[in-house]
Amino acid sequence: MAKTICIIGLQKIPLIKPGDNLSKIIVETMKKEKVPIEDGDIIVVAQKIVSKAEGRTVKLKDIVPSEKAKEIARQTLKDPRLVELILKETRNIVKATPEIFIIENKEGIICINAGIDKSNVSGDDSYTLLPEDSDKSARELLSEIAKLTGKKVAVVICDTYSRPFRRGQVGFTIGIAGIDSFVDYRGQKDLFNYTLKVKNTAIADEIASAAELVIGQGKEAIPVAIIKNLTRVKWTKETSTKDLLIPKQEDLFKETL
Amino acid sequence: MAKTICIIGLQKIPLIKPGDNLSKIIVETMKKEKVPIEDGDIIVVAQKIVSKAEGRTVKLKDIVPSEKAKEIARQTLKDPRLVELILKETRNIVKATPEIFIIENKEGIICINAGIDKSNVSGDDSYTLLPEDSDKSARELLSEIAKLTGKKVAVVICDTYSRPFRRGQVGFTIGIAGIDSFVDYRGQKDLFNYTLKVKNTAIADEIASAAELVIGQGKEAIPVAIIKNLTRVKWTKETSTKDLLIPKQEDLFKETL
Repeated sequence: MAKTICIIGLQKIPLIKPGDNLSKIIVETMKKEKVPIEDGDIIVVAQKIVSKAEGRTVKLKDIVPSEKAKEIARQTLKDPRLVELILKETRNIVKATPEIFIIENKEGIICINAGIDKSNVSGDDSYTLLPEDSDKSARELLSEIAKLTGKKVAVVICDTYSRPFRRGQVGFTIGIAGIDSFVDYRGQKDLFNYTLKVKNTAIADEIASAAELVIGQGKEAIPVAIIKNLTRVKWTKETSTKDLLIPKQEDLFKETL
Repeated sequence: MAKTICIIGLQKIPLIKPGDNLSKIIVETMKKEKVPIEDGDIIVVAQKIVSKAEGRTVKLKDIVPSEKAKEIARQTLKDPRLVELILKETRNIVKATPEIFIIENKEGIICINAGIDKSNVSGDDSYTLLPEDSDKSARELLSEIAKLTGKKVAVVICDTYSRPFRRGQVGFTIGIAGIDSFVDYRGQKDLFNYTLKVKNTAIADEIASAAELVIGQGKEAIPVAIIKNLTRVKWTKETSTKDLLIPKQEDLFKETL
């Protein structure tokens, strides 16, 4: 019989406020929407609501830009207060031009504007930052959901980013708990007994992209998706999205852009 | 109620040979596996079987390398015959070192070894090339499946590639028919009436990644996935994966690697 994986988007998650108990809200909303919680479920949560629950929303009017922020604001034609916010999240500046401000954030993610954005945040002046430590956020959600339900689930925190070479944004994983970020085929045989040498699927990012199919980026109001029957993942406590990031000197695409 | 998208992997697609009628095989296998075909289905087909059906399999022993191929074979430490195959698919060489051979193929895709690979191809000496024109392959599959079933479906041809900045491979779309490659939110309002400025989801690539969750890269033998209930896509005949590709001079990530 055909193998079926389902991605179930929760439509009744309320607007999230700082201090909200997100794991409890997810479990209760699953119950309300009659989505059973089962061993093996992968619960994908949009970064935006994790940041909101963790109080990672800031108002520009409360920010005083540094001299450095003012200088980069001139380079990038941005509000100096927004630049100040971005710099606080930055490990390295990758590119700062009038067209684009790309940085490596404190967690090592290369992204535009440090992943800080305005969409689906209440208040004209308000922006959300990424969680302080998204893997930790994922682990905490996992542990609380496990406590509430007794089920063995995984948690993935996703966001959408632009990428080199290709237009548009796709889902990426920025926090993970319960499962490995990869399905590593290297050393295994294919259908014709040939040993695979390179194949190492970044399944965490594929999960994020799959979840984005229901989550969406506009008015969908579906910030949580449950993936059922994805049996190919490796269950482990020893996991981190850090494994997904390539240091510049090791990146085989170095000097191709 | 919760919104559910399902990804159904066909497990009974036979091994594909040159000249096989792939659309007929897909429709018959869906029937055999009791997967209904419905208006709105997105049929995702792994590049490997499209290439096989189109006779895009070659044996290294039949290849005579050019002088240029021999020279690049020395630079990249590869078999000169494999380099010859890659060069035939190449518009521009992007990077040729002992570690990696990255090219822009004739269709404009930046990928390692022109997407030519050995996995799941019968015969020690055999490699598959990408289809000559993957959008055309997708259109042909769509038109034949529509004729056989009377249903309005979309077809996506997917492959997995490495990408800059992040480890591992994920699914990408290399051929599309029936739906747009993007869900463009620019100009739309979010939940709080803020006008979105940047969000333009490359849903084609998210579809490919989602399908890869069932398709896999090893012994899974699931080369076709049907995505049901993905209602957010835009149905159109005017579509192409070319829209996904960014010319180097326009790439905002230029000079970041």
